[in-house]
Amino acid sequence: MKEVDRLPKLLDYINQANDIKKIRMQDYPKLAEEIRSFLISHISKTGGHLASNLGVVELSMALHLFLSFPKDKIIWDVGHQAYTHKLLTGRKEMFATLRQLDGLSGFPKCEESNCDSFDTGHSSTAISAALGLVKARELNNENHKVVAVLGDGALTGGMAFEALNNAGRLKSNMMIVLNDNNMSISENVGGLANYLAKLRTNNKYTGFKENLENTLTQMPGIGKTVVDKLKRSKDAIKYFMLPSMFFEDMGLTYIGPIDGHNINHMITAFRAAAKVQKAVVVHVITKKGKGYPLAEKYPSKFHGVDAFDVTSGKAVKEEKGISYTKVFSDALVRIAEKNDKVVAITAAMPYGTGLSDFKKRFPSRFFDVGIAEQHAVTYAAGLAMGGFKPVVAIYSTFLQRAYDQIIHDVCINNLPVVFMIDRAGVTGRDGKTHQGIFDLSYLSHIPNLVVLAPKNKLELEEMLSYSISYNGPIAIRYPKGEAYLGLDEYQAPIEYGQSEIIKEEAEIALLAVGSMVKTAEKVKNGLKQMGKKASLINVRFISPLDTKLLDRLSENHSIFITIEENVRSGGYGQKVSDYLHEMNRPNSRHINISIPDMYIEHGGVSELHKRIGLDADSILERIKYLLNES
Amino acid sequence: MKEVDRLPKLLDYINQANDIKKIRMQDYPKLAEEIRSFLISHISKTGGHLASNLGVVELSMALHLFLSFPKDKIIWDVGHQAYTHKLLTGRKEMFATLRQLDGLSGFPKCEESNCDSFDTGHSSTAISAALGLVKARELNNENHKVVAVLGDGALTGGMAFEALNNAGRLKSNMMIVLNDNNMSISENVGGLANYLAKLRTNNKYTGFKENLENTLTQMPGIGKTVVDKLKRSKDAIKYFMLPSMFFEDMGLTYIGPIDGHNINHMITAFRAAAKVQKAVVVHVITKKGKGYPLAEKYPSKFHGVDAFDVTSGKAVKEEKGISYTKVFSDALVRIAEKNDKVVAITAAMPYGTGLSDFKKRFPSRFFDVGIAEQHAVTYAAGLAMGGFKPVVAIYSTFLQRAYDQIIHDVCINNLPVVFMIDRAGVTGRDGKTHQGIFDLSYLSHIPNLVVLAPKNKLELEEMLSYSISYNGPIAIRYPKGEAYLGLDEYQAPIEYGQSEIIKEEAEIALLAVGSMVKTAEKVKNGLKQMGKKASLINVRFISPLDTKLLDRLSENHSIFITIEENVRSGGYGQKVSDYLHEMNRPNSRHINISIPDMYIEHGGVSELHKRIGLDADSILERIKYLLNES
Repeated sequence: MKEVDRLPKLLDYINQANDIKKIRMQDYPKLAEEIRSFLISHISKTGGHLASNLGVVELSMALHLFLSFPKDKIIWDVGHQAYTHKLLTGRKEMFATLRQLDGLSGFPKCEESNCDSFDTGHSSTAISAALGLVKARELNNENHKVVAVLGDGALTGGMAFEALNNAGRLKSNMMIVLNDNNMSISENVGGLANYLAKLRTNNKYTGFKENLENTLTQMPGIGKTVVDKLKRSKDAIKYFMLPSMFFEDMGLTYIGPIDGHNINHMITAFRAAAKVQKAVVVHVITKKGKGYPLAEKYPSKFHGVDAFDVTSGKAVKEEKGISYTKVFSDALVRIAEKNDKVVAITAAMPYGTGLSDFKKRFPSRFFDVGIAEQHAVTYAAGLAMGGFKPVVAIYSTFLQRAYDQIIHDVCINNLPVVFMIDRAGVTGRDGKTHQGIFDLSYLSHIPNLVVLAPKNKLELEEMLSYSISYNGPIAIRYPKGEAYLGLDEYQAPIEYGQSEIIKEEAEIALLAVGSMVKTAEKVKNGLKQMGKKASLINVRFISPLDTKLLDRLSENHSIFITIEENVRSGGYGQKVSDYLHEMNRPNSRHINISIPDMYIEHGGVSELHKRIGLDADSILERIKYLLNES
Repeated sequence: MKEVDRLPKLLDYINQANDIKKIRMQDYPKLAEEIRSFLISHISKTGGHLASNLGVVELSMALHLFLSFPKDKIIWDVGHQAYTHKLLTGRKEMFATLRQLDGLSGFPKCEESNCDSFDTGHSSTAISAALGLVKARELNNENHKVVAVLGDGALTGGMAFEALNNAGRLKSNMMIVLNDNNMSISENVGGLANYLAKLRTNNKYTGFKENLENTLTQMPGIGKTVVDKLKRSKDAIKYFMLPSMFFEDMGLTYIGPIDGHNINHMITAFRAAAKVQKAVVVHVITKKGKGYPLAEKYPSKFHGVDAFDVTSGKAVKEEKGISYTKVFSDALVRIAEKNDKVVAITAAMPYGTGLSDFKKRFPSRFFDVGIAEQHAVTYAAGLAMGGFKPVVAIYSTFLQRAYDQIIHDVCINNLPVVFMIDRAGVTGRDGKTHQGIFDLSYLSHIPNLVVLAPKNKLELEEMLSYSISYNGPIAIRYPKGEAYLGLDEYQAPIEYGQSEIIKEEAEIALLAVGSMVKTAEKVKNGLKQMGKKASLINVRFISPLDTKLLDRLSENHSIFITIEENVRSGGYGQKVSDYLHEMNRPNSRHINISIPDMYIEHGGVSELHKRIGLDADSILERIKYLLNES
């Protein structure tokens, strides 16, 4: 152990909420440094959101110095930047278990601490939730502080704007800390981003009216007399004096920009903001990845990471096989080379969704609309109406936000939009707000929409080709991680509405959806060892249901086992059950293997599969149990 | 026939798109008057959206004079204001069938005319769809015009903002006509509404830079020299010269305000706008209900109407019994008198949802957030976290937009928010964008959420009381129109997760959801006439499923008939089917009566029920057929 490690650390004094207030002001930089070392050291071992958390160390410290917990409330938008907050509220010892099964969550969690006010995970919700807390405070005649902390990227999400519009009417204090690092997960986009950039960089926007006045006073031909006169003619000149009209126009007070790595400046701004009996936007400029040079340089890459080597920045684990994301990425570029009507849309995630190669190759046909899933989908509808073939790539959990647009704009208009739904099923360590376990339920009841799931790498490629040629709305859902390479020998051409029979036997029919085909293979082998025959079906089409196949299977199968990585309610299995009854084949049995109707916490995907009974062994046991019972 | 009626009318010359261009400029006012008479005359007979259409007569004329159809494209946001557009594009003769089964739709419809560019119905989608069309035009190197027309209310919807943010980057022309009548369906709300009011009313905002300059030049102490200097120092002064910084800040060009009843002014503005190679907001001020004094005076009441007497403004049909909306309204006020933690939230529809009485009685506990369903739901989550019991009243079809917020903010946080879902099931004449036929599918798979449906008036009251006392997320869905008063003698207390047995016999179990209990009563009688026994079950809880009852019924029932006013996929019936299989009772039969998985067009509710087989006679026939078949 090096000498320096034995010195008492400031972090040693921070064991519960408000302990930070004991730290002397001159030690703030040292504490910030210790926190960064702590975060880098732990995240490099467990994985987690690195760059976003490094960016808000001083901001979190300033908030904790200014506020009192648990009385005051912070709502962390998205929530992946709350590590320092967790560290400062008694959860230091739990960081070794970060994002592990039953360990510390990577997101705010009321169950973990009374200093967390709201469980978050998706973007752009914090102002709405905070406004609710503020209104409750008003009605209860309480006087605690309520702060929403959100990134500039979150402002591109429409519901943040809905909330700002309502916050504009507020007559009591609410603080909205706009943590501006000029990034969503990727670069931030749109007119507002340009505007924020202006606020940030322009010499004239140093944040206080006085500075602006000085600037103007020194302008040739204007001078102090004119400025004073302008100041007196209040209304006409309001626009002259306050650069941030966007916020002011909506009835909000704007303070900023403030250096988000200068704790004293931030506290001064917070104190000023707290005096205003309105909603106040405190515009704080931070650097994503601050303090870890590699993360500063590649903030997107280090946004969320697996365990990595601190010196090289390289992932600790061996490179895995090719991911479904990469398979999609490559296939789309190949298709788009030949078909110039193919365009691609992402909601702020060109890297995560695999569209960055497409972006490089076809910049004019690529659209990053910001964290704006609703617009992404309706924009795609417009492009389709204009004769193009839009491919909208959005994670399963985030596409939830565009449910209405999928119905109202794409499917009622019956437009040929392709939805590429990555991270479908259990996604793991981000936990309950990020699992993609509802998409079959929220998509497969939408009229006109075809819903597909591939069993392996080759099938994702073929389904993409099929979808591009299909003249209507169509969605492909596929899981996070490594693409399955097996079962390629069973590749039948994709035909509308038809499942694929991988192996036809009799007695038991295993009907597996997408990611579960691989699992069903193992189940089939297990059944064989039990002396049971089973046909293996790759469902392919969740919508429409392949009723012909079900009819045919009914002739020599009495047990139907559906297996899907989606909650039971509204999933594929229930449709099969319903159809089996419709056919009215007495004596036919259906066993529905799916995710129980519950939220799934964070942990490794395999661990979670085991816990919810979706691994081959658990499925086999359940089948054995049910078949013996009957 | 009066003499004046025999004179040739200008409308006689308008039989297809672009015919309006033959009308002489001096005759525009006369044509506008004829159109208004035509609309009032027809809508008073068929019902329809009156006030919104009367408000945009001149705006629609100006657009048709300026554009060429079908080459150019208009996207009508919401779409209920497109009557004049329909009249000007060859659909005059169809107005007698407006909103009737198989007749003219009350909304834009590509199937009706190649002059309709996009089927709409929900709010705030037009800019996104138009932006898609503009981008398609760019990529295709075409040069037609694309115009989005939206109300000021639509701007409170977040996705409009997502679209504006993206439109701010545009480098080719797109016109966004902001039809500002200071209304959603009810009054418009929020910071932005105040801002628009300022733009509208303030003398300084007369719309053109020149005017502003003149004003400033005449200000004492400023004068022409200073203004010229200010103009030259471009950047610093930009805010001084352009009042509408909200739009300009986002990268859009703003033109306005323009008198929306002055056709020539509007055309001048459109011409100016069309020259700008950016997205241009043309801010047009109109009066909702213009030309029909009663509608001008009561624009909310005359927003959407049934057939009415033109002189008195009164509805032609007899007052019906009490509606579910009114039952909810009265019950909520009664509950809130005793429980001061009850607060209520609407997304711009205090009248339609029945919250206007609550608003009058408890103004400080009532919140109209604008057309902002997403915010409404997350705001409710915040209020619930702050100790209140929020009642969120949103129509079934519009709540689709908050699907993600229901999961992410309310149900993951397991917060006691009550969703009152009016207009569930077939709603009738607004057609496919407004039917509430998906809510059981999009709600009943959400973990933690309880989903209820009442069979009659009394049960809605009791379910509301139950929901207020329930400590978790809970939704009640009920249909449009008259509350059923029958079956009150079978009122059992509401117990968590328990269906109500109205009549227990044997053999057949009729399991009916909410509105369908009344229908199931008739079906039961029909079955009786066939000599068949049937138990009648009022499902009450769609989630959680009452599995105990199903177990019990299985003992002496072999045929389960579920009846629900929701699409089949993901509905209650499929859950029952699934559970019957889980129980593995051989020989038990299930017949799933529900809405086929398709969009339902406009028409009367009873007509539509008949068409989709959801009336008692059709259901009986289907049961007979299926039971004989087996």
